[in-house]
Amino acid sequence: MSETHNGCEHGPHGYSDNKDAYLKRLRRIEGQVRGIERMVQEDKYCIDILTQVAAINKALHSVSTGLLEEHLRHCVVEAAHESERTGDSAAVDEKIAEATAAISRMMRS
Amino acid sequence: MSETHNGCEHGPHGYSDNKDAYLKRLRRIEGQVRGIERMVQEDKYCIDILTQVAAINKALHSVSTGLLEEHLRHCVVEAAHESERTGDSAAVDEKIAEATAAISRMMRS
Amino acid sequence: MSETHNGCEHGPHGYSDNKDAYLKRLRRIEGQVRGIERMVQEDKYCIDILTQVAAINKALHSVSTGLLEEHLRHCVVEAAHESERTGDSAAVDEKIAEATAAISRMMRS
Amino acid sequence: MSETHNGCEHGPHGYSDNKDAYLKRLRRIEGQVRGIERMVQEDKYCIDILTQVAAINKALHSVSTGLLEEHLRHCVVEAAHESERTGDSAAVDEKIAEATAAISRMMRS
Repeated sequence: MSETHNGCEHGPHGYSDNKDAYLKRLRRIEGQVRGIERMVQEDKYCIDILTQVAAINKALHSVSTGLLEEHLRHCVVEAAHESERTGDSAAVDEKIAEATAAISRMMRS
Repeated sequence: MSETHNGCEHGPHGYSDNKDAYLKRLRRIEGQVRGIERMVQEDKYCIDILTQVAAINKALHSVSTGLLEEHLRHCVVEAAHESERTGDSAAVDEKIAEATAAISRMMRS
Repeated sequence: MSETHNGCEHGPHGYSDNKDAYLKRLRRIEGQVRGIERMVQEDKYCIDILTQVAAINKALHSVSTGLLEEHLRHCVVEAAHESERTGDSAAVDEKIAEATAAISRMMRS
Repeated sequence: MSETHNGCEHGPHGYSDNKDAYLKRLRRIEGQVRGIERMVQEDKYCIDILTQVAAINKALHSVSTGLLEEHLRHCVVEAAHESERTGDSAAVDEKIAEATAAISRMMRS
C-alpha cells in the first residue's frame, strides 16, 4: 500500500461523491464472477465462459478508468494548485509518476 | 450463448479435470472483488484500489488462458481428429474461428 | 527463436497463402509508425499522437490474431492429425502450450 | 484531430524536451516492423513472428505511457494552474476527460 498520498491522504477522495455508484458496479462484478463459478460447476461450454470473463475484464477496466479520472480531477489537480502556492513542483510530479505507473499496470493487466 | 459446440457439446469439457482448481481460483477472485468493495467503502487511496483492480484483471486473464489451453487441447484436437475421419474440415475450421474470436475479445478486454 | 516447430518447421506456414496480404498490412503499419515520427517532429498535440499509437496497436493485434488463427488451422491441426497416426499426443500438446504462451504474451503487450 | 488543446495548443508540448529520444524509439519500432515484414517474406515460424509483434506492442505502449506522463506533467498541470487563476475549472476538467479517453483507447488497443 502506498504511503505517499499526501494531499489526498485524509479522504474524502476523488471517487467519494460517487461511492454508492462504484459499490453498485463492484457488486455487479462480484455477481458476474459468481456467475462464472456456476458456469464452471455446471460444465458450461469453455468459449461461453471466456466470453463472460472478457465481460468482467471490460467492466473492471471501466471502473479503473473512472477511478483514475476522478483521481486526476481531484488529487492531481489539488497537488498542482498546492505546487503553485508553494513554488515546489516535486509533490505534483510524484503524484503524476504514481498515476502513470498505475496506468501502465492497468495496460499490462 | 454459443449453440455450435458440437464435439464438445455434451461435457465433460477440457477444463473438467481441473474443475476444483478453477473454482478455487474463481472464489479467490470473488474475494478480491469484495476486498475492493471494502476499500471503496473505507475511502482507501484511489491508486491502491487501481493496483488491486489490475491484480484481478491479471488473475482473470490467467484463468482465461488456462481455459483456452484446455479448450484447444481437447475440443479443437478432438474436432481435428474427427475431421480426419470424416474428411470434412468444416467443423474444425469453425471451432478455430470461434476460439480466435474469443482470443480477440480477451485481448480487447 | 523457437527451435521446436516440428511439423511446421519446413514451410510453407499457415500464413503462406496470404503472405502478400500480410506484407501489405505490415507496410501500412510501418507507414503509420513513420506518420507518428512526423507528428513528433512537427510538435503535434500529445493526445492526437496517443490516438495514432492506439490505432497501430490495434492493427498489430489484428495481424497477430490472423497469424494465430492460421497457425491453429494449419500447424496445430496437422500436429493433431499426426498425433492420431502415431498415437503420441506429446507433439500436439507442445504446440498448444506454445500457442497459449504466445496468446498470453499478446494479452500482456 | 482534436481542436481543443487550449493551453498546450501552440507548442512546445510536454514531450518536446525529449523529442530526439522519442524519435529514436519510434525509428527503432519502425525497424522492428520492417523486421517482421522480412520474417513473413522468409517464411519464418508463426510463433516467432507473434513474439516479435508482442515486443512491438510493448514498445508502443511504453512510448504511449511516456507521452501521457509528460502530457499530464505539462498540459494538465498548466491547465490546473490557469483554472486557479481564472476560478474556472472547465478547461482542466476537459483536459482530464480527454486524457482519460486516451487512456481508455490505449487499454483497449
